[in-house]
Amino acid sequence: MSDFRKSKAWSALAAHAKKLAPQHIKDLFKEDPDRSDWGTITAAGLTLDISKNRVTRQTIDLLSALATEKELAAERERMSAGDQVNGTEARAALHMALRGEGAASAAITQSGEVKARFLDYARSINSDNSSQTHKHIDRIIHIGIGGSDLGPRLVQAALGTADQIQVHFVANIDPHELNEALDGADPAATIFIVVSKSFTTQETIENAKSAKAWLEANLPAARNANKQFVAVTENTKAAASFGIIPDRIFPFGGGVGGRFSVWSSVGLTLAITLGEDAFNHFLSGAAEMDRHFLDAPLERNLPVLLALVGVWNRNFLGIGSHAVLPYSQRLALLPSYLQQLEMESNGKSVRRNGHLADVETAPTIWGAAGTTGQHAFYQWLHQGADLASCDVILPLGGPDQYQHHQDILLANGIAQAEALAFGRNRQATEAALAEEGLSEAKIARLAPHRTFQGNRPVTVISMDRLEPKTLGALIALYEHKVFTQGILWDINSFDQWGVELGKNLAGGVLKAITGDGPVEGFDPSTRRLINAARQTRTKTTRED
Amino acid sequence: MSDFRKSKAWSALAAHAKKLAPQHIKDLFKEDPDRSDWGTITAAGLTLDISKNRVTRQTIDLLSALATEKELAAERERMSAGDQVNGTEARAALHMALRGEGAASAAITQSGEVKARFLDYARSINSDNSSQTHKHIDRIIHIGIGGSDLGPRLVQAALGTADQIQVHFVANIDPHELNEALDGADPAATIFIVVSKSFTTQETIENAKSAKAWLEANLPAARNANKQFVAVTENTKAAASFGIIPDRIFPFGGGVGGRFSVWSSVGLTLAITLGEDAFNHFLSGAAEMDRHFLDAPLERNLPVLLALVGVWNRNFLGIGSHAVLPYSQRLALLPSYLQQLEMESNGKSVRRNGHLADVETAPTIWGAAGTTGQHAFYQWLHQGADLASCDVILPLGGPDQYQHHQDILLANGIAQAEALAFGRNRQATEAALAEEGLSEAKIARLAPHRTFQGNRPVTVISMDRLEPKTLGALIALYEHKVFTQGILWDINSFDQWGVELGKNLAGGVLKAITGDGPVEGFDPSTRRLINAARQTRTKTTRED
Repeated sequence: MSDFRKSKAWSALAAHAKKLAPQHIKDLFKEDPDRSDWGTITAAGLTLDISKNRVTRQTIDLLSALATEKELAAERERMSAGDQVNGTEARAALHMALRGEGAASAAITQSGEVKARFLDYARSINSDNSSQTHKHIDRIIHIGIGGSDLGPRLVQAALGTADQIQVHFVANIDPHELNEALDGADPAATIFIVVSKSFTTQETIENAKSAKAWLEANLPAARNANKQFVAVTENTKAAASFGIIPDRIFPFGGGVGGRFSVWSSVGLTLAITLGEDAFNHFLSGAAEMDRHFLDAPLERNLPVLLALVGVWNRNFLGIGSHAVLPYSQRLALLPSYLQQLEMESNGKSVRRNGHLADVETAPTIWGAAGTTGQHAFYQWLHQGADLASCDVILPLGGPDQYQHHQDILLANGIAQAEALAFGRNRQATEAALAEEGLSEAKIARLAPHRTFQGNRPVTVISMDRLEPKTLGALIALYEHKVFTQGILWDINSFDQWGVELGKNLAGGVLKAITGDGPVEGFDPSTRRLINAARQTRTKTTRED
Repeated sequence: MSDFRKSKAWSALAAHAKKLAPQHIKDLFKEDPDRSDWGTITAAGLTLDISKNRVTRQTIDLLSALATEKELAAERERMSAGDQVNGTEARAALHMALRGEGAASAAITQSGEVKARFLDYARSINSDNSSQTHKHIDRIIHIGIGGSDLGPRLVQAALGTADQIQVHFVANIDPHELNEALDGADPAATIFIVVSKSFTTQETIENAKSAKAWLEANLPAARNANKQFVAVTENTKAAASFGIIPDRIFPFGGGVGGRFSVWSSVGLTLAITLGEDAFNHFLSGAAEMDRHFLDAPLERNLPVLLALVGVWNRNFLGIGSHAVLPYSQRLALLPSYLQQLEMESNGKSVRRNGHLADVETAPTIWGAAGTTGQHAFYQWLHQGADLASCDVILPLGGPDQYQHHQDILLANGIAQAEALAFGRNRQATEAALAEEGLSEAKIARLAPHRTFQGNRPVTVISMDRLEPKTLGALIALYEHKVFTQGILWDINSFDQWGVELGKNLAGGVLKAITGDGPVEGFDPSTRRLINAARQTRTKTTRED
């Protein structure tokens, strides 16, 4: 057994889990009818309800003890103070500083200057002074991938409206996404915002080059394509070499990782489309969650509780699948966003000291918007062989139009949380089937197929409305959940070395495909694939 | 131990797994350099390569013996003959009949008539004769959810082009999706295709009603909104009551489940946008895969092999997470499509005879398009604490434009498959870091974080091009995989009782939210959520 599992707090939890595991959520509600009182906590406009998890007050106490054992409070301070919490890369993690929280003042000053500059630029676009042709800018093509894409894409989908400038996001190297973004674009009225921390990300640079070639081919000869390009990057030199004019280059700092960067100049697109006020509200919602995270006691702390319950489900109940279920079409991209945030941050198996982490870390994070997902994979959630834990996210107020739709949407979200947790046992199922008028023989045959075990742990996060402040708070909630789990698992949540190998290997494969490098040296399966790619390529080139 | 695990074939596999589990894919390639020869099979335009899985020829033989023990061949015949393979609902599964395969002739005749009618209608739209205003129809709003949505949505994204009629899909009850579809629509030039087998699906009917109200409010008074509605349903009577004129109602049969229905009149939208020829090619690609599935020996049978490898990973290597990784932006929706197909079909834990299936069934199915996913969750795939099995899907030829992008796309897909399977051990990592010029101390500190265990099972499915035929074959491949796994796990892949409970409970919650039913009787957590929803609702209503 590792020193990890031998620790006092971990052992106590393991012993507690043995006792608690056989209990059904239904029974926990019977034993403690007030559990939704202590299990429900509100901060920064969000209400977290953990009472439909397989935990008791004692579980929370024991988990808090684990957090104390792992010195969560001190680690939280270290992050807030701008210490190098990203050890393998010798960097701080300054996303809180970007929204004005934490003590990392140097970073604040720097980002404050940059922020003033990019907000200025956003204002200039919105006041129509910017385009060289004196035409309205009517389309933004945002080129970036991973952390330079998912945040702006999520927030735009969540808060954008039809009367704003049109935005297209281009991430994939597959040219289909760029082609779709360019389709119908007016060259003189389109700006390209190129986002890449290193300004060497292959997908982003190739897409930017192809976009520039398109613009140059389609702009009147007198125009300068470079003037319609903007860069958001740490590598300002490379952006300048690309041709971008200096006052359209907006740096973002080394202490801000891609997946924590939507608050920085990476959010420029949002500052244009949503406007400066909304963008600031988005940041202030996150700042409110920051203060709560830094100040609230562990057992009343939303991000900490979310993290603790996650660790409980993962490490003590053995649940490796976690579904994110926002009941809001506007949050349809939230599962993808959290997939990156959680899986790239904590999808690791080496501790900060380099030893193997022999406990489970981030589970599979996936999901879809409700009610759509109900007609796709909820069968599996309810009756599959595995248990999944679920986060149900409920913006209570919808658009003013179509209240009836909103009522049905909420009713489904609330009812699914109930159904997943409580289920319907064999006896209740038989009674329900009898009420349907089924014969005894039919009941006997069908009841097993129509029984629901329930006991699926469900966390509900609700808010009055999805708006800039609550969305900022929601994202910050998950950021701090991820940080907290990283501490509990003793892993560095801020590096991503796992991205390296495939990227390196792709260089050699690319050369082999294009005939600029050897096919030998690869394994036979890879070799066959390379040869197939070469053959198709020759065919295509010949036909052209 | 259950009779399941005690069976001869299952026990043999369990024993074999014990021996094979410690072996690395790298070693398997060393021991059998020809493994990619026997592991690569082509049919219906698709090439399957299973050689980067943790299997040997013996594994495939033992898995084939399991398939034989479970009488796969006979079950396949039963499905093909139109027998009631969906026992709990006493229905056949006739998706093969829809593409002209299988022996279920009665179904063929019926669907043949319907097909002629809906293709006629599609033709009439494309020849501009249909609209009552003699305007071009320039927008289709396809209203459906789950199986009435995901298939058409996937195929439209995969094969649609910008010069076709614009299509918007509306699934969610959240009115945001409908609002987006209606935004900018010309009432006189828009048709609504309403798809619901029962014509009682709440989301679909409410969306259809709201769409009709919008159309009635925006069409000139002399026009009849009903003429711009089309229904695809089994319940033709309900569609007629809704107001849809009889010759615009296209039935689809009781033996076709939603998630297997894209081949039927549910595909009407595709027949319009892609045209009749492409739609027929799509069906004929599937039919080609059907014939292969029905005729090829088990160990050379693509869907069977895909299923066997899946069972191996799931039940004998204990892998509960399966990632679908199409290297094609056009297939970005494939993970969602397969999520439904696999998880709704096989996310069950009761055998056909009503006994508990005490073996694992469908894993979590998730994923995203490459290369986008590489910058999001591949960290977890490579270095996470859990193993996931992966399907890498590679259309080799891209659009004629931007060959360089396509080369990079393929290079990444091929390289990731290599990296996931082979990894990079500690020694090779140290060598790589030394080559980067890192100091010994730094190498010692970083090497653990930059080592890749590999040994992630990867299946590669490639095709020359993504086109109607190969897409039809690809979907049919997975349909038959799902059927085969259902037989191996002894579950009914064609029912979905797990959808029932949440739906039932939502009725009571809805009444409580709108004040038409009691809040008492719910558990305290649910009650609190209902009250919060009511409060927000009152506020909203008051403000209006």
